[in-house]
Amino acid sequence: MQVNGKHYQTIWLENGTVFMIDQNKLPFSFEILQCHSWKETAAAISNMTVRGAGAIGAAAGFAMAQAFLEAPANSPDYLSEAQKQIEATRPTARDLFYASAEVFKSGDKISAVSRALELAAQNAEEGRMIGLHGHELIAEGTGLLTHCNAGWLAFVDYGSALAPVYESYRRGRRFTVFADETRPRSQGARLTAWELVNGNIPHYLIADNAAAYFMQQGRIQLVIVGTDRVAANGDVANKIGTLEKAIAAKTFGIPFYVAAPLSTFDLEANSGEDIPIEYRDAGELLFASGPCEDGTIETIRTAAPGTQALNPAFDVTPAEYITGFITSRGIIPAKAESIRKLFKNELKL
Amino acid sequence: MQVNGKHYQTIWLENGTVFMIDQNKLPFSFEILQCHSWKETAAAISNMTVRGAGAIGAAAGFAMAQAFLEAPANSPDYLSEAQKQIEATRPTARDLFYASAEVFKSGDKISAVSRALELAAQNAEEGRMIGLHGHELIAEGTGLLTHCNAGWLAFVDYGSALAPVYESYRRGRRFTVFADETRPRSQGARLTAWELVNGNIPHYLIADNAAAYFMQQGRIQLVIVGTDRVAANGDVANKIGTLEKAIAAKTFGIPFYVAAPLSTFDLEANSGEDIPIEYRDAGELLFASGPCEDGTIETIRTAAPGTQALNPAFDVTPAEYITGFITSRGIIPAKAESIRKLFKNELKL
Repeated sequence: MQVNGKHYQTIWLENGTVFMIDQNKLPFSFEILQCHSWKETAAAISNMTVRGAGAIGAAAGFAMAQAFLEAPANSPDYLSEAQKQIEATRPTARDLFYASAEVFKSGDKISAVSRALELAAQNAEEGRMIGLHGHELIAEGTGLLTHCNAGWLAFVDYGSALAPVYESYRRGRRFTVFADETRPRSQGARLTAWELVNGNIPHYLIADNAAAYFMQQGRIQLVIVGTDRVAANGDVANKIGTLEKAIAAKTFGIPFYVAAPLSTFDLEANSGEDIPIEYRDAGELLFASGPCEDGTIETIRTAAPGTQALNPAFDVTPAEYITGFITSRGIIPAKAESIRKLFKNELKL
Repeated sequence: MQVNGKHYQTIWLENGTVFMIDQNKLPFSFEILQCHSWKETAAAISNMTVRGAGAIGAAAGFAMAQAFLEAPANSPDYLSEAQKQIEATRPTARDLFYASAEVFKSGDKISAVSRALELAAQNAEEGRMIGLHGHELIAEGTGLLTHCNAGWLAFVDYGSALAPVYESYRRGRRFTVFADETRPRSQGARLTAWELVNGNIPHYLIADNAAAYFMQQGRIQLVIVGTDRVAANGDVANKIGTLEKAIAAKTFGIPFYVAAPLSTFDLEANSGEDIPIEYRDAGELLFASGPCEDGTIETIRTAAPGTQALNPAFDVTPAEYITGFITSRGIIPAKAESIRKLFKNELKL
């Protein structure tokens, strides 16, 4: 994507160093972080400098490739220990496990780097194809709701849920995006809104609480969200709040699509119950950071001192609430049978 | 309610001055604001120094009484102009219009003050009775969800949605409150959490996005919210997000109760469509205020520069989503017929 007239990917690997847009600094400052070792890259995943299903997949692949580059000769445990630590950074997104396993089994330094680069390129290509298949869902004049950030910042490029938005805009269609703020980390307000401002896409930022209201008012005709992991039966793990939006969409008869790169399908998870849900620090609800009027970044308290918070980062939306998956191979129903067909003739993905 | 070992009401009138807990300063500082004229009191309603259906009703009554005290002799238009301005402060809550009209028609200074005091006392008494009728809904071990703040801070005392919580706690029952953060103004995180900490009530603060997740996980067995206005058919206007919680509760088969003082019923509104929905400044979504580590209050930006926000403050939950109203006269179904019966033999309320 273009930022300040220059093309950027969210994350890339160059001479053994991983470069990434620092998503904790966005939207107030656009900075590139360099990770010189697999441990630095893993830390960037767990502190969410890089976040979003696809982007952390690419990051995990790159980290694994860095581990190959850094591995001392004759230390067979080094790589499996690195893989274990990379996989421990975040539990929910399927891409992370997929990419680290793929690179792990590549066997040597050169193959590892090459496989990691290939996975990252696939990740961007998946987004591009999702855009090409999904844009037709966005009719002229549509009000489209999205939750969290599944834009290009969540991938290597293009994004998942926002890929059809960019493609539709490129084709001159007029529509309005409603972007949920997405508390507690406010990826909607910080990242999706930043992407949409950056891309000139007409949009409104709304409180998470307001989604059902705008559906009831007839302002929203379509929902597209991303996903961190899809189970074999079509259940979807995605950012906390997705379930609530899906239930509201069903109530108001609004189509609810999940943009899902192939790497997010986990055929070994029979249903949503097999997907681990990450709980994050309560501090995400109790404090907020951002720039004051003079530009200095401050952290303020946002809740009553002494209160306790519970902070699940994801939820599972049952397949029955999902109209379809937008994949790089086309749009399919959220049914076990359709998912099986998607991967027919492939041993595993 | 007790704060630091002393009994407080949320708002009171003394020698023509209105005293109120400054709810914009809570939960970080407990201060009493004095309003010496009806204009100051009206300003405190519109800038939300005092907020919550019942408390702004009391404030409007007090402001109208102050207008009587301040009215120059032989200026008949003064009072109707004051009423108009008091009513223009907030559009959605029924109590505000009810109280200002009641005091307006009282006729003279002494009757006005006396009627305003009476309405405030009724408001507290309504809360007490709602607690007595509602506490039986909270079985031992219940997980109870509430949205926004309908505690004693939203009334003169006791509260509406939280009145059953306080009564149940007083009786030694054990249960857990799940308090929605309630973006964008975070009344849940700031005010409900503060009330619950202050009252020693076991609770968790959660992101608005997490309510459906905890319902799905079986952690929530009951929802109680307040209301700003109830239409004759049982439709309920309340804080934005209430609709979404009600839809989720119905989906998971969880009873959804609305604690409704008699003064919130607007029999002249046939349905929710007759209730005006207030839109507030987009800045509520784009900025947040709170104390930094050193205690100074800072305002930070929370969203991408250049983004636009839409900020409806209330929504309407259709009667079909509501299990019942907890009123000072008992619990009734959310049906037109039951509401009519509640006011039988009363010309108007």
